[in-house]
Amino acid sequence: MKTAQEYIDSVKKMRFELYMFGEKVTNHADNPIIKPTRNCIAATYELAEESKFPQYHNIMTANSHLTGKEINRFCHIHQSTEDLVNKSKMGRGLGTYTGSCFQRCVGMDALNTLSMTTYDIDRKYGTDYNQRFLKYLQYVQDEDLVCCGAMTDAKGDRSLRPTQQTDPDQYLHVIKEKPDGIIVRGAKLHQTGAVNSHEIICMPTRAMREEDSEYAISFALPSDTEGIIYIYGRQSSDTRKIDSPNMDVGNILYGGQECMVVFNDVFVPWERVFMYKEYDFTGDLVEKFSAYHRQSYACKSGMGDILIGASQLIAEYQGTNRASHIKDKIIDMIQLNETLMSCSLACAYEGYKEASGTYLVDTLRANVSKLNVTKFPYEIARLAQDIAGGSIVTMPSEKDLKHTEIGEYVAKYLKGVDGVNIENRIRVLRLIENITVGLGAVCYLAESMHGAGSPMAQKIMIARQSNIERMKNSAKRVCGIEP
Amino acid sequence: MKTAQEYIDSVKKMRFELYMFGEKVTNHADNPIIKPTRNCIAATYELAEESKFPQYHNIMTANSHLTGKEINRFCHIHQSTEDLVNKSKMGRGLGTYTGSCFQRCVGMDALNTLSMTTYDIDRKYGTDYNQRFLKYLQYVQDEDLVCCGAMTDAKGDRSLRPTQQTDPDQYLHVIKEKPDGIIVRGAKLHQTGAVNSHEIICMPTRAMREEDSEYAISFALPSDTEGIIYIYGRQSSDTRKIDSPNMDVGNILYGGQECMVVFNDVFVPWERVFMYKEYDFTGDLVEKFSAYHRQSYACKSGMGDILIGASQLIAEYQGTNRASHIKDKIIDMIQLNETLMSCSLACAYEGYKEASGTYLVDTLRANVSKLNVTKFPYEIARLAQDIAGGSIVTMPSEKDLKHTEIGEYVAKYLKGVDGVNIENRIRVLRLIENITVGLGAVCYLAESMHGAGSPMAQKIMIARQSNIERMKNSAKRVCGIEP
Amino acid sequence: MKTAQEYIDSVKKMRFELYMFGEKVTNHADNPIIKPTRNCIAATYELAEESKFPQYHNIMTANSHLTGKEINRFCHIHQSTEDLVNKSKMGRGLGTYTGSCFQRCVGMDALNTLSMTTYDIDRKYGTDYNQRFLKYLQYVQDEDLVCCGAMTDAKGDRSLRPTQQTDPDQYLHVIKEKPDGIIVRGAKLHQTGAVNSHEIICMPTRAMREEDSEYAISFALPSDTEGIIYIYGRQSSDTRKIDSPNMDVGNILYGGQECMVVFNDVFVPWERVFMYKEYDFTGDLVEKFSAYHRQSYACKSGMGDILIGASQLIAEYQGTNRASHIKDKIIDMIQLNETLMSCSLACAYEGYKEASGTYLVDTLRANVSKLNVTKFPYEIARLAQDIAGGSIVTMPSEKDLKHTEIGEYVAKYLKGVDGVNIENRIRVLRLIENITVGLGAVCYLAESMHGAGSPMAQKIMIARQSNIERMKNSAKRVCGIEP
Amino acid sequence: MKTAQEYIDSVKKMRFELYMFGEKVTNHADNPIIKPTRNCIAATYELAEESKFPQYHNIMTANSHLTGKEINRFCHIHQSTEDLVNKSKMGRGLGTYTGSCFQRCVGMDALNTLSMTTYDIDRKYGTDYNQRFLKYLQYVQDEDLVCCGAMTDAKGDRSLRPTQQTDPDQYLHVIKEKPDGIIVRGAKLHQTGAVNSHEIICMPTRAMREEDSEYAISFALPSDTEGIIYIYGRQSSDTRKIDSPNMDVGNILYGGQECMVVFNDVFVPWERVFMYKEYDFTGDLVEKFSAYHRQSYACKSGMGDILIGASQLIAEYQGTNRASHIKDKIIDMIQLNETLMSCSLACAYEGYKEASGTYLVDTLRANVSKLNVTKFPYEIARLAQDIAGGSIVTMPSEKDLKHTEIGEYVAKYLKGVDGVNIENRIRVLRLIENITVGLGAVCYLAESMHGAGSPMAQKIMIARQSNIERMKNSAKRVCGIEP
Repeated sequence: MKTAQEYIDSVKKMRFELYMFGEKVTNHADNPIIKPTRNCIAATYELAEESKFPQYHNIMTANSHLTGKEINRFCHIHQSTEDLVNKSKMGRGLGTYTGSCFQRCVGMDALNTLSMTTYDIDRKYGTDYNQRFLKYLQYVQDEDLVCCGAMTDAKGDRSLRPTQQTDPDQYLHVIKEKPDGIIVRGAKLHQTGAVNSHEIICMPTRAMREEDSEYAISFALPSDTEGIIYIYGRQSSDTRKIDSPNMDVGNILYGGQECMVVFNDVFVPWERVFMYKEYDFTGDLVEKFSAYHRQSYACKSGMGDILIGASQLIAEYQGTNRASHIKDKIIDMIQLNETLMSCSLACAYEGYKEASGTYLVDTLRANVSKLNVTKFPYEIARLAQDIAGGSIVTMPSEKDLKHTEIGEYVAKYLKGVDGVNIENRIRVLRLIENITVGLGAVCYLAESMHGAGSPMAQKIMIARQSNIERMKNSAKRVCGIEP
Repeated sequence: MKTAQEYIDSVKKMRFELYMFGEKVTNHADNPIIKPTRNCIAATYELAEESKFPQYHNIMTANSHLTGKEINRFCHIHQSTEDLVNKSKMGRGLGTYTGSCFQRCVGMDALNTLSMTTYDIDRKYGTDYNQRFLKYLQYVQDEDLVCCGAMTDAKGDRSLRPTQQTDPDQYLHVIKEKPDGIIVRGAKLHQTGAVNSHEIICMPTRAMREEDSEYAISFALPSDTEGIIYIYGRQSSDTRKIDSPNMDVGNILYGGQECMVVFNDVFVPWERVFMYKEYDFTGDLVEKFSAYHRQSYACKSGMGDILIGASQLIAEYQGTNRASHIKDKIIDMIQLNETLMSCSLACAYEGYKEASGTYLVDTLRANVSKLNVTKFPYEIARLAQDIAGGSIVTMPSEKDLKHTEIGEYVAKYLKGVDGVNIENRIRVLRLIENITVGLGAVCYLAESMHGAGSPMAQKIMIARQSNIERMKNSAKRVCGIEP
Repeated sequence: MKTAQEYIDSVKKMRFELYMFGEKVTNHADNPIIKPTRNCIAATYELAEESKFPQYHNIMTANSHLTGKEINRFCHIHQSTEDLVNKSKMGRGLGTYTGSCFQRCVGMDALNTLSMTTYDIDRKYGTDYNQRFLKYLQYVQDEDLVCCGAMTDAKGDRSLRPTQQTDPDQYLHVIKEKPDGIIVRGAKLHQTGAVNSHEIICMPTRAMREEDSEYAISFALPSDTEGIIYIYGRQSSDTRKIDSPNMDVGNILYGGQECMVVFNDVFVPWERVFMYKEYDFTGDLVEKFSAYHRQSYACKSGMGDILIGASQLIAEYQGTNRASHIKDKIIDMIQLNETLMSCSLACAYEGYKEASGTYLVDTLRANVSKLNVTKFPYEIARLAQDIAGGSIVTMPSEKDLKHTEIGEYVAKYLKGVDGVNIENRIRVLRLIENITVGLGAVCYLAESMHGAGSPMAQKIMIARQSNIERMKNSAKRVCGIEP
Repeated sequence: MKTAQEYIDSVKKMRFELYMFGEKVTNHADNPIIKPTRNCIAATYELAEESKFPQYHNIMTANSHLTGKEINRFCHIHQSTEDLVNKSKMGRGLGTYTGSCFQRCVGMDALNTLSMTTYDIDRKYGTDYNQRFLKYLQYVQDEDLVCCGAMTDAKGDRSLRPTQQTDPDQYLHVIKEKPDGIIVRGAKLHQTGAVNSHEIICMPTRAMREEDSEYAISFALPSDTEGIIYIYGRQSSDTRKIDSPNMDVGNILYGGQECMVVFNDVFVPWERVFMYKEYDFTGDLVEKFSAYHRQSYACKSGMGDILIGASQLIAEYQGTNRASHIKDKIIDMIQLNETLMSCSLACAYEGYKEASGTYLVDTLRANVSKLNVTKFPYEIARLAQDIAGGSIVTMPSEKDLKHTEIGEYVAKYLKGVDGVNIENRIRVLRLIENITVGLGAVCYLAESMHGAGSPMAQKIMIARQSNIERMKNSAKRVCGIEP
């Protein structure tokens, strides 16, 4: 396994074609916008270092079912419900450690999904996708790589299917077959951690029909393959990372990352193709990936921990922590946060073994879990703003605090309880700002809403997965209706 | 193990001193108010009959850790997290089967609590409570008995402690010690299934202090012991069980039961005393019992199944089932219901072994689980009323439907979709009435609110059990505050 | 104007063909199920008696625009926004006075609607409906009559229109024209206060199309006209009015009433027909009536007053009223309750004059108001149950309290704070039971859901009435999109 | 009255001692951070220009009760409930026009409060505050000035009173009396629109006791008086106004402004002092000001209009507008938004005349109104993010869109429905980002939470203003408890 530093060194060498805020980024290694996001993935390596974090060892690592070697859990294929449960706990642990999106789940969820889908396709069609995939998997495990799981297409008009779009590239598709591979064109949007990744794994974004078969495509490539263009997303308060990296940025260590990834006629060799034209497996792939990835939102209860901790801190700093309504709000936040975690755990514990040997979460519960995630963090954030007070949006900047003439006023009038360091009070307020209305809110709120699919996607799955006939029969029996 | 019929026969022989609606009940065996409630406990025996319900065998039964014999899970001491999980699933299964409160959980939770507390007291004080208790337990297991777990005292003025009350009997207490036992006086309120039980197990209702030591008392007695007086609770729509047992009652098979139980100077022999004066263990006993019993509310997701099934049925009967808003409401109901079940499962899966060898649920999560139960069933019930339409509260009675002159009008104008039996439509409407505003609402709503402790009790425990210091430290680290 | 006693005397003389619980009711005057519901309408007369309630005089009475005479506001046609506002306040006042549905609003809303629709039809078609109507109105005003406003048809399969139903009578319709009038057949369901009314006014329940023109019918008749059959609805805990009218019934004075009303080929003379075949006005009639009637739900904030008052009382009786969480819940209840009232007031204050001279409420706001009513009372009821504790569903009956042998135990163990009369504590608990899970819950919850149309009906109107184009243009302007 | 341009010219001349982001601002007139905030106040002048906005004339202007001259409503003392209602409508109109906080309410609310409090003090103490105030008021009206209403002190340790603080300056106070006036020291935080104002009007932030009498102080000064130092607040995404003022900023026209205002030993002449030492009137002043200012949050339903419009637009641009769940969410947003407005209207319509002749809103309803504002905008924002999709937080920047090489990819893959201008889609997405997680969220969310007092302040007032005794008596009567 790589150390955190080895990860950073390895990704520094990648030669991404990357644009940010209208400029080509020639030195991504030192870019201050990117740096905290890379630190955040580095944390997934750091917590796996047994000497540094022995208490996380079981959670962060596993033994490869291919090689038996100890590997980072992010590269592991789940072999038991215990693995699934540890995945949920890993998500929460990293969320609590970083207060941010650590970006490495999507790749893990993609690997696990493909371990099943390639197996299932082969069983039906006699193809050899699973063998290709397992070879690729071993490479990822041996090298301890970060994989960007790429699912969401541009989609154009959402009321139309891929082939109905005016522009056929609105969904990523094969534009040409060659003897040694395929050429693909299109884009994947909302790509979390894209330029912090070694590899990118593409999957279809929806169930396809026969006429969409050129869109039924899954493959993996090194992230800096020629023809892949990254365009960095513009996010709330992002430039504070440049102008005020010490205090105003709120979370001074970590952050998330989202890119638009353009596949500008990119070549994929056959050995990296894991699905092509088997449109009848796209729906199943999407459902399985979604179930895994909806489980992954256990991380939000980790971010919740930080926001609850910050809320308690600011109450103590301001002298309101003994007010009964403040205590009550803290409990309400914990209640919501632990409900989220309980649901993620339940879908893991109730997981089961698929034909391929991989363990899959309980799909109904995974969707239930994620649907709560589209609501509860918003309420937790609202309560945090309630407790914090108006200063999170009206405070002067760090530079004012340190200004030779007015700094003393800022310090004097932002004073809270005697003995509390002014700077600490400001830091906590900026952290709450970050998570509720700044960069962290991208991870904590908008990503909770749309990551792993928007709420309606979960609702559709819940309708499909629950056994309404059984419920109807139970009702009939107790009120005396003949079956 | 007893069969359902053997249970009913055995309880028929009990000689309760019972009053109902101002009358002494001399023949409780055939009382129409009691009958459905007894059927409901009988279901806990019925589902354990392997020949009839093989699919429930693992869930409903276990092997005694004392004798190795197969016993009903309601008499079992949890020996693993799997036992805890099966308890949650048993609760849901029975909730779905009966659409009611099956009354047998409290005793199970009392037995498991005492298996720990008697052990812990003995370790500190060198007493022999645990041995007494295990002997009693074996009797309960061998005879497959129903135990009423009796906790809630009358409490008088809630702002005063036991010894501060004007009337010292507001909390059950020892009024006299005798060579062979003790005499107790007081009352236990809200006693679920009291006159369907073979045994009654009393426990303190709150943490006691030294001055309250005569109140620090736990014991078990046969339910028809002399001096115990039962007064049956008057509940919403209860007399429909007498006047309209066929249709209007809604749930024609099952129901819950609540009694006031008066201990009018009742003698308890020493071998049935499991705590006496060890006030320093009362808080711990209450917390453990509460954690177990809060887990038990998995049953409400079973009742939820029936209410969701009924809502879907009535939509189909009335021709609204394809409306998108109806579908959406059904999904919302499932979402809330499965969130409840997920939380009960999570607290079971995350359980752990106590010193005595008994497995206890994750206490924080058990409280989180129950606190959701104080809210979600109300919203599920509201949605059910929305889907059902106004007829649940305006419909003529069954007797009108069957009236020679006007019956045809009732049938004609309560017709729904062609081909739906009018009677079936009425039955489902009455079932929804039952669960949302009738007898079933006692179980589904009020009991969800106050059973196993009112919401504030859960909030206090959540505050106590969650690790706010850890959260504060996580927040400090990411915003740069020195630890 | 009639006095309360004169009203009761007048309605006693009516000769309804009435069935209840499978029996023909030959003496409706003394029926204990009916009596409290009649008292409740009597309250609408009582509060209008200036000598008894001078403070309500302006609210409860108005001067007829036809005769200038002082009349009960329930018979008045709104001549100003002040009239509309007073209507909302009258609803709240009576809700607070009775804790129940006082049943007289629907008729008032029907009269006001017809004052506009008859006028508008005449303008288009040159008919004389308005003149007929005004003559009828003056009779109602002069005699101070209660009118039952009858709208909801049986509807059969809700996914089909009137003429698509297998049974053509699922919507009330004209089956025969005669020289002197028409013969109608069908039924009106959920008829509030039907056998407490002097008159019944029928209106179409939905927008009709040309093919439905025989269903486009509005008329008024004396309630005891031959061929009209009333079948009394069976409601939660209704028979407590017979067996325990003193305490267990909760609200010992008042109650609501719902009937199925069958029109078994009933003759309507032309002078009482206010619409016939003008299907193009049915949608408008329904919208206007609905708007008025949605405003009428101000009454629920009156019932809310009683439930909040009862919750505060029980907290005081039990010694919990100084707990911060109890205070907070009381405030939450008030917040929800006053939000309801504020919305009803706003739609009244923002009302406007229609072509006929009648004032109509702001239709958008009336729908917004009612949609909140389908939710907030449920939450207020949930909070009331939280504050009240489990006794509302487990307490022994009044007869037990008064039993010679066990009465002392009931009194002893239901004691609350010293000095509180046990009976008073029981009365308040029974009142909370009544409103949240008993007879009052029919009015407070189910009627709040479906009265004046189910939630989806309000949502459709809100979509239709709000000006989304204006909002889009505002958004475009500030973000720089050309109009 | 001034025109918008005259306002901007007049404020440009002010000589503020202003710091922003650690720099002294020497040219506030052209500062790009300030400019949109000043435009926003300018809108309060613009809409009052009858020739440009005749439809707003009645709402935006009134006739001075001092001079009879037509004045801007923001300078007016309410003379009727119609004035109060027009104030609510003005707030909504300007919210809809600007999508931001237009900053001029606080001053209006301060003027109206002082018109009452100075009168009431004079009546008790024979002082001449009211005369001083009216002279000042006439000056403000004649010159059509913007007044910054300054209430919130630094407050230090919130659990301590002013004189208990270690630093006596944590609340603004008089440090010296002089023959011609007083010297004050302290700070006012969260000062909305401070450096867009001509005048600043200070008031006490809480009820004071006798020992706090040096803190019981109210006065007005020109905003650029010597010794007043302004430190500009750092807000989410604020620097986008500099680097991307065209598209990424979301709201390209308007914005809010918050400053810390330090009173560094500032001299106030007696004629500008409106309260000094009359601590017994501070509570009343705070309650009245709060009631007015809580009404003012009608503006948030204006911002809601913009967010709902933007949500509908983006659904249309992306092809999801016909999905039933999208329609349903839009209706839910409208429902919440109109409930807010209805409550603001209700407290205005139910206003009444105070002793001074000024009309005050219904205080209970004003608090109810504001308490809803602390919740509903958060839910509206959540729904907007749901409808908008993930692009609001992952999209490339405007500069990427216009980049010569990659601009075409951005345009291609952000395409929505055919025929929709890509730039328009981006603009709407950025507007939703602005209001839900960017600069606009400061106004729409955090200000909704804490402006005019945090939620607990409203709860305390609701408890105090509602008549719980009346409710208790109503409950007693219907359940048969003797009064």
